[in-house]
Amino acid sequence: MVLILRTMTSAMTLDHARALDAQDPLAPMRAQFAVPDGVIYLDGNSLGALPTATAARVAQAVQHEWGQGLIRSWNTAGWIASPQRVGDLMAPLIGAQAGQVVAADSTSINLYKVLHATLLIAGGAHSVRAGGLKSSEKRHNIVLSERSNFPTDLYIAQSLCAQHGFTLKLVEGGELEQALTDEVAVLMLTHVHYRSGRMHDMAALTARAHAVGALAIWDLAHSAGAVPVDLLAADADFAVGCGYKYLNGGPGAPAFVWVHPRHAQTFAQPLTGWIGHAQPFAFTPDYAPAPGITRALCGTPPILAMTALESGLQVFAQVAGGMQALRTKSLKLTDLFIELAEQRVTAHGFTLITPREHGLRGSQVSFAPIGAREKDGYAIMQALIARGVIGDFRAGDANAPADSTDRHDILRFGFAPLYNSFAEVWQAVEHWQAVMTSGEWQRAEFQRKAAVT
Amino acid sequence: MVLILRTMTSAMTLDHARALDAQDPLAPMRAQFAVPDGVIYLDGNSLGALPTATAARVAQAVQHEWGQGLIRSWNTAGWIASPQRVGDLMAPLIGAQAGQVVAADSTSINLYKVLHATLLIAGGAHSVRAGGLKSSEKRHNIVLSERSNFPTDLYIAQSLCAQHGFTLKLVEGGELEQALTDEVAVLMLTHVHYRSGRMHDMAALTARAHAVGALAIWDLAHSAGAVPVDLLAADADFAVGCGYKYLNGGPGAPAFVWVHPRHAQTFAQPLTGWIGHAQPFAFTPDYAPAPGITRALCGTPPILAMTALESGLQVFAQVAGGMQALRTKSLKLTDLFIELAEQRVTAHGFTLITPREHGLRGSQVSFAPIGAREKDGYAIMQALIARGVIGDFRAGDANAPADSTDRHDILRFGFAPLYNSFAEVWQAVEHWQAVMTSGEWQRAEFQRKAAVT
Repeated sequence: MVLILRTMTSAMTLDHARALDAQDPLAPMRAQFAVPDGVIYLDGNSLGALPTATAARVAQAVQHEWGQGLIRSWNTAGWIASPQRVGDLMAPLIGAQAGQVVAADSTSINLYKVLHATLLIAGGAHSVRAGGLKSSEKRHNIVLSERSNFPTDLYIAQSLCAQHGFTLKLVEGGELEQALTDEVAVLMLTHVHYRSGRMHDMAALTARAHAVGALAIWDLAHSAGAVPVDLLAADADFAVGCGYKYLNGGPGAPAFVWVHPRHAQTFAQPLTGWIGHAQPFAFTPDYAPAPGITRALCGTPPILAMTALESGLQVFAQVAGGMQALRTKSLKLTDLFIELAEQRVTAHGFTLITPREHGLRGSQVSFAPIGAREKDGYAIMQALIARGVIGDFRAGDANAPADSTDRHDILRFGFAPLYNSFAEVWQAVEHWQAVMTSGEWQRAEFQRKAAVT
Repeated sequence: MVLILRTMTSAMTLDHARALDAQDPLAPMRAQFAVPDGVIYLDGNSLGALPTATAARVAQAVQHEWGQGLIRSWNTAGWIASPQRVGDLMAPLIGAQAGQVVAADSTSINLYKVLHATLLIAGGAHSVRAGGLKSSEKRHNIVLSERSNFPTDLYIAQSLCAQHGFTLKLVEGGELEQALTDEVAVLMLTHVHYRSGRMHDMAALTARAHAVGALAIWDLAHSAGAVPVDLLAADADFAVGCGYKYLNGGPGAPAFVWVHPRHAQTFAQPLTGWIGHAQPFAFTPDYAPAPGITRALCGTPPILAMTALESGLQVFAQVAGGMQALRTKSLKLTDLFIELAEQRVTAHGFTLITPREHGLRGSQVSFAPIGAREKDGYAIMQALIARGVIGDFRAGDANAPADSTDRHDILRFGFAPLYNSFAEVWQAVEHWQAVMTSGEWQRAEFQRKAAVT
């Protein structure tokens, strides 16, 4: 093997990037994904790529398990145990143990379950401590989150706080520690921020929450499969997350939910459907929760979607070195992207939004268009997509404080260490530079017409 | 065509049944389903058969839309509009109009949404009328349902009643009218009973509910695609139902939810996820419900499952005569099954549980083993399944009143007029008679070992 050396100050060439791929122990994993020719896919943080095994696996579930097995497949094909089986595949990716995770429903619905559970615990603990004060006199009456948390999390929290007499308090990310006072019942955060890619210190914030008598719920939508997560080591209370991003479970894949063992036999969630019952097929008239995490289930599991998610998770089981190996590559990919973009593109009017510090970074990189380019982010991303470089655009948040970078529009690039290569990083920046120097983003076809997904 | 005539008193032969198939205008629909050779599938009321078009359609969604289109398919493949598009296919089957139905989540979760919505309406109406009495003094403080309603519906109602200070009152089916007093806030019923196959008079019970100031929620799990339903004519308030039974949407297919236009712009449901937001991609911090039924959505739609359900519903669009034609055939199938079973099998120890009156019958037939066979239903069904006649067994409800037929175990046979034939009805009874006369059900392999699905 010829090693192509360079210094950090000289510009990297495509050959340099290819040399990095040649040395990448994870490079062979790319063959397990069906990324289309001509596409540099940097949006696996919105929808992960299709694992090549998944098409055949889903076809088998449709034609053989459903078509031939019919109703018998609930037992013979193991459908009924799929929420737990898929959960067990998820567990090692998030620092949980088998039997602690189930796959079910959507992230929003799972958050509703666990936030409701924490409000009951907070209310119950409060009653024990203070002898049953009224809602307005609760000591722990705040659900604390981040102003710029992913909106669906905030919407769910608004609904539950309104129903149960809690107050949703939103602060900036940097103000969280200070806002963790003894009025807080629940700290509800997304671990890696969907816009900036900034990662919270889960263990530190959880410890701080516990110190004031609050519980901690973590949304791992942008973490699971992207960065090492250790829920047990962080002593988190509840966690939810999404199956369709870095876990490559398919569009709208089932989400997951985890509960710490100290709550698993006692937590109560309000979506008390039959699949979470202790004896779902006894058809008893009264609800009795199943032991442990199974009570987080509600309705009949969506088998075709569950099958695709299971197939996606099975890819992770083949990664030598697991999440640590993926993290090592992820940081190299995002480091290289930042380095090359700052060498070749940012002078055209962009600034880095994502933290440079490894400990604060997830597996995505966001740049904001600034100055003369401030309003041109959408068109620039459309021009990139037209070249096959698929990232995404997120509009700035007009509700953010005047000094917050959240006010900026952003170009968001997700890096999936399972299938993205160093050559793709190089090529993406090459295209981006070409889009800027050619001015092709100014074409009418790329200009914003309406709200986009 | 040779018509083979018979009198009602003479035993029908397989040729007679085949002649009925030859005259059946729906017989060609069978070719659109992949029922395995050697199987007489009478469990489409648990999991509908696989439409032959679905395998290719799902493969296209996996390989082309997800694999090639990736994130772009939310727009280019119409994924984002799938809940409404699938809902529009559902609408004509349940007497609703396009724009009134969405496909989403599970039946249990959709019931949670609409029951919560009705409790808010009941509470609100109450406040207006009575000036804000406390929960314990509410005039309308009862959710009324049937003791033997499908358990998940009761579990969800228990959860919501406990949370919001309502009382869940359960009565026998025959006591519903009498129990509809002016204390009732919500009448929550399943239209066709999952055990007996008995069908409620939706219009009459809804009118009676409205007369006492209550709202009516209907669960159409065993109705949609099985019997004509006219939600608008019945003036129902809310409805939910399931996509995986008679709609042939696949195992754990998305469920659906309908709201009457008089509530559609005002109802509030608590699972306030981003897909139900007025502007999901504006990422605004505060929840604002989308206009109309779209606010019933919560998380990201499960596209692979949605695709299979859409494919299943597209079969219905090809039925000349629609639900009325399906109903005509369904009644002929269940009539014939009852007639043949009573000629040839019931003397071995079975009694009919399903109503004989057409107006009271769904699209399934249940027989209870009685007398010396009272405890043998499970083994008899296993022997039938071993012969390829797939129905299902449901254990009796020990909580039922002493005089209720719900205490009986049942053998349950579902008839799907899209794909079941008259010859299959004849053959099923032939097998059943053979199982009884041979005594093969007494084999050890068919005896009950543990709880079954």
